[in-house]
Amino acid sequence: MMDEKLPEIRLTPIGTVRSEIREPTHRQAADAASEIVIDEALTASLDSLEEFSHIIVLYWIHKSRRPAPQKVHPRGNPQSALMGVFATRSPSRPNPIGKATVRLLARRGNILKVQGLDAIDGSPVLDIKPYIPGYDSVEDARAPAWMVKE
Amino acid sequence: MMDEKLPEIRLTPIGTVRSEIREPTHRQAADAASEIVIDEALTASLDSLEEFSHIIVLYWIHKSRRPAPQKVHPRGNPQSALMGVFATRSPSRPNPIGKATVRLLARRGNILKVQGLDAIDGSPVLDIKPYIPGYDSVEDARAPAWMVKE
Repeated sequence: MMDEKLPEIRLTPIGTVRSEIREPTHRQAADAASEIVIDEALTASLDSLEEFSHIIVLYWIHKSRRPAPQKVHPRGNPQSALMGVFATRSPSRPNPIGKATVRLLARRGNILKVQGLDAIDGSPVLDIKPYIPGYDSVEDARAPAWMVKE
Repeated sequence: MMDEKLPEIRLTPIGTVRSEIREPTHRQAADAASEIVIDEALTASLDSLEEFSHIIVLYWIHKSRRPAPQKVHPRGNPQSALMGVFATRSPSRPNPIGKATVRLLARRGNILKVQGLDAIDGSPVLDIKPYIPGYDSVEDARAPAWMVKE
């Protein structure tokens, strides 16, 4: 039981993904190059980001299935046992926010060119953060075989 | 110039942080133990999460300064040069979503006990994801000295 009502939160996207990925896919997007077009009014907020090799992109999975199921097959594989959706990276989740760590290839004004973003074309972008080794990475992390196996 | 209007997005938090950290702080929270109380209606969505050693918590930085400044001093240190807010992890950002990677100590029903969460008490939780080594970590990432130095 929650001891207080959870308030509704409103977000305004800061930009949009431009990608050749047009449909949701379960394949890795490791080689895909995309652009993130940030609202021009926020261009100055990107200054110094180019000093980082990698960035974290939080985006809205706008084509996700709603409402989200409680259990899903990991990686969309029907052979896999059903798992709680929060134990997976399924795009169909209660708040469908995607989190991708991508290589920052270039920044030109309000446009970021990145590699490895698995967001589809048109995805609203919610936040951009620098990737910080040690803070965002874990040396001794353990994940079950059903998640890490190809 | 954006070529389409960015739509407003509405989120309903999935839970709340219970922490001894009551005020925003710039110190690392590496040793802090916290609880994440998830909406009981979503308990089944957590199943199998306990197979992961670490999880990613997306939360709402509900005490952040609004509107966000375009430039901030990294780590809140006035001696540092001003940087674009997206080049920092400042809590005062256009969409103040915090992203923390934390150790999952235990799961009991709808309650997650975690270590290292820098969210303050009462923070609304937006999403829980498993941390996947290799997908969420980068081997060769580079960050500037002003960010990585203590």
